[in-house]
Amino acid sequence: MKAVILLSGGLDSATVLYQAKADGCDCYAISFDYQQRHRRELKSAVTIAEGAGVMQHQIIAFNLRQWGGSALTDDGLELPKARSLAQMSEDIPITYVPARNTIFLSFALSYAEAIGAGRVYLGVNALDYSGYPDCRPDYIQAMQEVFNLGTKEGREGKGIEIVTPLINLKKTEIIELGNNLGVPWDKTWSCYAGGDLACGVCDSCRLRLAAFAELGLKDPLDGN
Amino acid sequence: MKAVILLSGGLDSATVLYQAKADGCDCYAISFDYQQRHRRELKSAVTIAEGAGVMQHQIIAFNLRQWGGSALTDDGLELPKARSLAQMSEDIPITYVPARNTIFLSFALSYAEAIGAGRVYLGVNALDYSGYPDCRPDYIQAMQEVFNLGTKEGREGKGIEIVTPLINLKKTEIIELGNNLGVPWDKTWSCYAGGDLACGVCDSCRLRLAAFAELGLKDPLDGN
Repeated sequence: MKAVILLSGGLDSATVLYQAKADGCDCYAISFDYQQRHRRELKSAVTIAEGAGVMQHQIIAFNLRQWGGSALTDDGLELPKARSLAQMSEDIPITYVPARNTIFLSFALSYAEAIGAGRVYLGVNALDYSGYPDCRPDYIQAMQEVFNLGTKEGREGKGIEIVTPLINLKKTEIIELGNNLGVPWDKTWSCYAGGDLACGVCDSCRLRLAAFAELGLKDPLDGN
Repeated sequence: MKAVILLSGGLDSATVLYQAKADGCDCYAISFDYQQRHRRELKSAVTIAEGAGVMQHQIIAFNLRQWGGSALTDDGLELPKARSLAQMSEDIPITYVPARNTIFLSFALSYAEAIGAGRVYLGVNALDYSGYPDCRPDYIQAMQEVFNLGTKEGREGKGIEIVTPLINLKKTEIIELGNNLGVPWDKTWSCYAGGDLACGVCDSCRLRLAAFAELGLKDPLDGN
């Protein structure tokens, strides 16, 4: 079965791509250049997609800086630094990009419909990103209904299924899954800061480092 | 109240913009350059937005030709010509762009959330475009649920409302409404063909010409 995989270049989406391969899918990756602060992640996405042997990799470009509203799309807003995991889960963080997953899933739906794919894989995670409204199961269910009603095939009962293998996993469990699937962690990129090396202090770096540490593993991106 | 208006430059969306003004909204227009065959419509969108005195007009660019799947985004597919209204309503036409309204509404949601708008106006019409899955009321309802669950404000019960003033109107009724609202028809653009003058034979032209004729009016874009 053909599947479209939303691939940011990060740890989660790379694991999802390898899961889709393990599920026997022909994988079509899609990534987004939305002028994010950490556009560097796209290089990782390209490398990971090539390494995984995807059938095709589409990079769709648009500019979410036109209205900003997030520290990832507005250089005037500072990235939160050195927050504890407890602090991260308290509120919707400034790194939340308005409706980003809705935009990403919409393009994935269009791509999937055009190529006749039966699935769209997305690496959302409700536990570690509990602050993000568009990472929760009820939101995904609402998008599934849009997939069913908003397409030709969905109307005919052959809808495109949204698959979220990580939605209820802890970050440590994602890393364990990825280890089993052979995900090349050294090729992934999670840092929000946009430097040449991972900063180690943004929320994304801290979540990742804490999970590797909890498992007694070393993150290959950890320069220390 | 701030409102985001999806403005293609066509007859329907221009009417919706004027309706939003009549509803007392501060209007923020959004248009899309998706490499559509009839990109000329964007010039009309700019002119109409200026004429209506919008607060801001965002044009978001991306390339749906990357996967095509529609006669509007693939020059290798021919536009249907000289079809009767009955023929048009039989099936989903080749001018259907996979998931286009889902993509458009997703960007509108992002923009609305970023500027704190309470409404998104969309000129979908379930009668004349009965073939399009993403123009029907149940699809709009599903997107409304995404708006509610996929945003900060929606989670707090202050969701952004999708408003579709034309959804149950016939084309003739839309023209009557637009006449009452003072929509400048001569500034609008509906033709799919992408020429300097409206072709008069694509589905969009024929729907429009038939409606003006039924009302005993002359379409200012009708060169004959």
